[in-house]
Amino acid sequence: MATLQDIGVAAGIHLLTALIFLFAFAILRLQPINDRVYFPKWYLKGLRESPRDVSTSVGKFINIDWRIYIKFLNWIPEALKMPESELIEHAGLDSVVYLRIYIVGLKVFVPLMVLAFTILVPVNATSSISDAEKDDVGFSDIDKFSISNVSEGSNRFWAHVLMSCVFTIWTCFVLYKEYEMVESMRICFLEAQHRRPDQFTVLVRNVPADPDESISEHIEHFFRVNHRDHYLTHQSSLRGGSFGSLGVHFWKVVFNANKLSKLVKKKEAYQNWLDYNQNKYVINPKKRPNMKGFLGLWGEQVDSIDYYKAKIDALVKEIAVEHERILKDPKAIMPVGFVSFKTRWGAAACAQTQQSKNPTIWLTEWAPEPRDVYWQNLPIPFVELTFRRLVISVSVFSLFILFMIPIGFVQSLATIESIKKNAPFLKNLIELKVVKSFIQGFLPGLAMKLFLLILPSILMTMSKIEGHTSFSEIERKTASKYYYFILIIFFFGSILVGSALQDFDARKELKDLGDSPTIVLKKLGVLVPMRATFFITYIMVDGWSGIAGEILRLIPLIMFHLKNSLLVKTDEDREKAMDPGSVAFAEALPRMQLYFLLGLAYSVATPTILPFIVLYFGFGYFIFRHQVINVYEQKYESAAAFWPDVHYRIIISLLISQLLLLGLLTAKNAKDSAPILIILPFLTIWFHKYCQNRFEPAFSRYPLEEAMAKDTLERATEPGLDLKQYLANAYVHPMFKDDDELDECEKELLSWRENDYKVLTKRTNTPIDTTASTSTTFLIER
Amino acid sequence: MATLQDIGVAAGIHLLTALIFLFAFAILRLQPINDRVYFPKWYLKGLRESPRDVSTSVGKFINIDWRIYIKFLNWIPEALKMPESELIEHAGLDSVVYLRIYIVGLKVFVPLMVLAFTILVPVNATSSISDAEKDDVGFSDIDKFSISNVSEGSNRFWAHVLMSCVFTIWTCFVLYKEYEMVESMRICFLEAQHRRPDQFTVLVRNVPADPDESISEHIEHFFRVNHRDHYLTHQSSLRGGSFGSLGVHFWKVVFNANKLSKLVKKKEAYQNWLDYNQNKYVINPKKRPNMKGFLGLWGEQVDSIDYYKAKIDALVKEIAVEHERILKDPKAIMPVGFVSFKTRWGAAACAQTQQSKNPTIWLTEWAPEPRDVYWQNLPIPFVELTFRRLVISVSVFSLFILFMIPIGFVQSLATIESIKKNAPFLKNLIELKVVKSFIQGFLPGLAMKLFLLILPSILMTMSKIEGHTSFSEIERKTASKYYYFILIIFFFGSILVGSALQDFDARKELKDLGDSPTIVLKKLGVLVPMRATFFITYIMVDGWSGIAGEILRLIPLIMFHLKNSLLVKTDEDREKAMDPGSVAFAEALPRMQLYFLLGLAYSVATPTILPFIVLYFGFGYFIFRHQVINVYEQKYESAAAFWPDVHYRIIISLLISQLLLLGLLTAKNAKDSAPILIILPFLTIWFHKYCQNRFEPAFSRYPLEEAMAKDTLERATEPGLDLKQYLANAYVHPMFKDDDELDECEKELLSWRENDYKVLTKRTNTPIDTTASTSTTFLIER
Repeated sequence: MATLQDIGVAAGIHLLTALIFLFAFAILRLQPINDRVYFPKWYLKGLRESPRDVSTSVGKFINIDWRIYIKFLNWIPEALKMPESELIEHAGLDSVVYLRIYIVGLKVFVPLMVLAFTILVPVNATSSISDAEKDDVGFSDIDKFSISNVSEGSNRFWAHVLMSCVFTIWTCFVLYKEYEMVESMRICFLEAQHRRPDQFTVLVRNVPADPDESISEHIEHFFRVNHRDHYLTHQSSLRGGSFGSLGVHFWKVVFNANKLSKLVKKKEAYQNWLDYNQNKYVINPKKRPNMKGFLGLWGEQVDSIDYYKAKIDALVKEIAVEHERILKDPKAIMPVGFVSFKTRWGAAACAQTQQSKNPTIWLTEWAPEPRDVYWQNLPIPFVELTFRRLVISVSVFSLFILFMIPIGFVQSLATIESIKKNAPFLKNLIELKVVKSFIQGFLPGLAMKLFLLILPSILMTMSKIEGHTSFSEIERKTASKYYYFILIIFFFGSILVGSALQDFDARKELKDLGDSPTIVLKKLGVLVPMRATFFITYIMVDGWSGIAGEILRLIPLIMFHLKNSLLVKTDEDREKAMDPGSVAFAEALPRMQLYFLLGLAYSVATPTILPFIVLYFGFGYFIFRHQVINVYEQKYESAAAFWPDVHYRIIISLLISQLLLLGLLTAKNAKDSAPILIILPFLTIWFHKYCQNRFEPAFSRYPLEEAMAKDTLERATEPGLDLKQYLANAYVHPMFKDDDELDECEKELLSWRENDYKVLTKRTNTPIDTTASTSTTFLIER
Repeated sequence: MATLQDIGVAAGIHLLTALIFLFAFAILRLQPINDRVYFPKWYLKGLRESPRDVSTSVGKFINIDWRIYIKFLNWIPEALKMPESELIEHAGLDSVVYLRIYIVGLKVFVPLMVLAFTILVPVNATSSISDAEKDDVGFSDIDKFSISNVSEGSNRFWAHVLMSCVFTIWTCFVLYKEYEMVESMRICFLEAQHRRPDQFTVLVRNVPADPDESISEHIEHFFRVNHRDHYLTHQSSLRGGSFGSLGVHFWKVVFNANKLSKLVKKKEAYQNWLDYNQNKYVINPKKRPNMKGFLGLWGEQVDSIDYYKAKIDALVKEIAVEHERILKDPKAIMPVGFVSFKTRWGAAACAQTQQSKNPTIWLTEWAPEPRDVYWQNLPIPFVELTFRRLVISVSVFSLFILFMIPIGFVQSLATIESIKKNAPFLKNLIELKVVKSFIQGFLPGLAMKLFLLILPSILMTMSKIEGHTSFSEIERKTASKYYYFILIIFFFGSILVGSALQDFDARKELKDLGDSPTIVLKKLGVLVPMRATFFITYIMVDGWSGIAGEILRLIPLIMFHLKNSLLVKTDEDREKAMDPGSVAFAEALPRMQLYFLLGLAYSVATPTILPFIVLYFGFGYFIFRHQVINVYEQKYESAAAFWPDVHYRIIISLLISQLLLLGLLTAKNAKDSAPILIILPFLTIWFHKYCQNRFEPAFSRYPLEEAMAKDTLERATEPGLDLKQYLANAYVHPMFKDDDELDECEKELLSWRENDYKVLTKRTNTPIDTTASTSTTFLIER
């Protein structure tokens, strides 16, 4: 068990690490050569073309003005300067609300910390327990200020019960205020939003097959009949209309272009290699770059440039064939449509109602914004969707079980004696000090770390398979899975592993979990304060150094310079080489909510943890505010659609903390005071229900009053608006969509159609100059 | 423990009782004098005016044709004759679907019975357990055919596991088919429905207050703006429009007329007493009936006729004052409106969408049909509603705890020794045999019975307080509470009480329930087969004799003849004296679902119970079909809106049966086979989810396609329809509504308004002849 001094030293080390990271960042960000790594957002917004202050030729690469280095923390006031309203415009509501969660953390935990340190810490510190009890719980220094220092059955527990009530009420109050705030921000944001295609558009899935009509016709007829006064168009009929029957078919349906996009991606990869080799050749014109045939490892020596050119040519052909196949094959048309209405009111009414008496067909929902659509999942039929959900929930469950293994491993190795007993032949090997310490100290941690690294992508894949239709929804579902993982495996797992280190039998604990929740609750309650030091260490590693590392952007920095020196030829390439990144909500939200969980769970039992958490939230706020302003470019905007989940998960943390305290106090024999705590979970659940009814509709529905107000305003200010023209091509598969080259594309398509297929293949057979591609290939490339 | 013979005798007795009831019914129903008791439905439908076959004067009262008595079971084929489509027209969809539940019972349990008797019973009967084990479980005769006869750890349990899977699949299959059927019946029913006011009308609650506008104006403006093309009217503006500003206000708002309806009810009661005394005076003109002042118990002697006349006069005055108050007092206007639309499409779109960005105001939902509206609950504001729900859930929880007391009582008395120990002064009293047997055998049962009698009305009151806006919803919520009561208190309670009788410590069991579900599950699993005989007895009492008693209608029979001889003066009075009754879904559904629970829970463990259940469902079907055709008059029609609940609760029964079997087999040490059962609950839950998504929308939403189709059809067939006229007065508080006398009422109202209040009071002061009331009082009376 760590002493107070140990923790002090660790805190010092981690603060120093964080400081070093910050200093490194301050230096690196001032170098013009890194400008695109640390300020990509401004480049992407077109507000910056080249690094500032380029006076000398050296100044192009490194900054030699020493005065700037003195003020290396300058970025903090800079990051705070931008007012919230401007920030919403600059970075979107998602990012701003994400930042607000840090503020919520501060709002919740600063008063909790003050109260806990003025009331609970004195109560705990002036108490004392017998030495027998001390031994019993593995007493450590830090426990002097924790609830462990109060002896069993003491009246002092009243203070803890009271504080728990106060903490619950305060947390709920902050959550309520915040939900109200975020709701009104969302409403304002949606109100202020410019005209957008998704306001008028509804995604229709599971269009039933009709023997007499094509899917496009069927959609049109259905909505012309059932939304007579409101239906405008679906997909984009105008564009299509301009070039006859092919066009109508082409632009009015949603294609299943999954294979095509795979091919295009493959081609892009080859293109990168080609660029790389051509650059190499330019630098060293004496030697043409060559390589071995198979992955560059073995086989015949070939000329690299020729090799990749040939590969790209083959792919271009394949892409053209696939393109043609999609246009010809009726199976490539998905039973899905994006139906647009004349008014927002019409779309709102359609999205929120049931269309057919069979609730498995003609399913309507708000269309996600175009860049948010996850095209692959659109055509999944209703029954399959239900099956997929079943399969995925089983898989997640199994995954959690699988993750129990490293934990069980840790725990079984803690008593290395058990290995000796079970596998006596390993005895000599294990006795070696190196092996022993490797097995005990390193292996389980490594396994856990590896698992944790791949976990988010596994969960993301699972959410994709579940069949959600937009990236934002997929991310939200992933976040939810990840949170449960952190809660069950990391939080409870760590506590149980702690118990193993303390000579409890964790396997028995796990078994008991199924048998008797109240007993386990008691035991868990007792274990919680004992693991405080572990979690404090974790907060310092992940919450302080980890976040400071975030601002340094080491990997994007390296990647940018690598790409810059190897691949970049034009300014456009340089633009592409920038990787602004984004707040990955699927990971970031659950990881942040862990801190809420820790803070709430320990607020009464071991208040010593609170300053560490407050520091995390404060520090995180500065760092991410800077990142949001200067770096991140979100892939989509969901207008804070994740907030209900955030609220819900903080409520879960609150419930868990209440139950754990109840268990702890019961175990501590506080018979008079503990039963009062039973009421808290019920009130918390009721509070959550109330918030849900009061605020959640704003996150899932679109009130008709708003829709009508916007429609009326628009009709008054822009009476001549051609909405059909405006909505044209809004929802075209990215493979087929390009605003500038669309006309080119149409011509190409017409010529493809008019001439014959042979002509086409002949045309694409001609070798293509990669630097100056024709419009056809350029289009396909995008 | 009962032997097989005991059960046989009991079955004989109950079958005999049922037969006697049926015979009595057969005789009573043939007497013309009882015709209105046994065939009220036909009278109410206007299809019958007087008993059939009235040839002689004696024949008016009793039937003397002996030939008819021979065929005393004739009603059964008669009851089956009417085809389902006709039955729907005759009695409504609710009743027909209610009857279908009996058929579902047969569909589920007949194959289960056949399978169980051909496979499980032989498996059980040919097995044998040691005497030690026999003593252990309190082995009885009937257990020879039950799972108790299989010894621990036997491989024969594979048969039970397999059968459990087959039973689950079969039950789910039947449920799926039935859900599909009921859904399509509901859709057809709604499609075939004539034009009805509720198809065009939406109930709007929580209309926000506006300082500048009255509620009526506010509603009108809001919907004129936000449903520009669809809004028609709210409440009934046409009627109101015909007599000026008073009218507009009067008919366009929803009044809080709760006090008024109380007064009217009171007046009706006095009217009944007056009629009774007047009848008495007519029969015996020599003596004017008189009574004592206070409740007829003490005080001065008064002339009864004069007394009641005076009372009624006073009430008439009070009613008039209250009537006037409501019209004048703006507080009597509720912030609620019934908004009607030009088309069904408009109403469907409005009911399913959110109106305002604040989701606590302008709440829209489908208007219940007019006779289904529960007026008292309309004005409850949103926050209060949430609080009410909280309070009621706490109350229901407390009520359940309260009901534990009689059960605990039973159990503590079972060991009468404990009383002696705890209260030694009672020792001598208790030793008396009479007292002892009274305490042990009668008192707890009586307490339980009394509780059970008042329970449905308690639950109904609770559901009313919860704030639902229609009778049908209140009944559904009551049914749900009642079901949980039956499940927890009756089913599990009985099993635990059984354990007490078997020398288990039930208090400890109950305590354990909180501690360790799996252990308790095991114990419960073991206890289930032991209580089979108790439940078999219960089925015979409640399910056989009880149902046969239902057809006899003893209480309505007595009440009718009492009323007939004491109160009835005119044919209209006689009409009123008829009490057709109705299927009280709040009670009938949960009680029926108990049989599903018993059948499923015992199907594998003690298949002997199945024939009893099959007999119940078959018998019940005949009886209730007869009653539905000839007797019951439902108060409202919800188009089988209760079906999702029925489905859900059968699923719960299925889950419980699976878990209990799992517990039993685990306790029986069937290590190989039992784990397979774990998968069943998950599959069942998934099946339920699927059904919910697939079918439930049909029960809560109204597809736009249907709405549009009906609108279009109507426009084509009835182009000149004046919908405004049609919807006039559809949703007027029953206190103010009378189709025939409405014009009278309007005139009255005008005169009330035009003359002064003094004039009015003077007018109503004049004594009123009760037999020929003026239109004013007649209106108020209704």
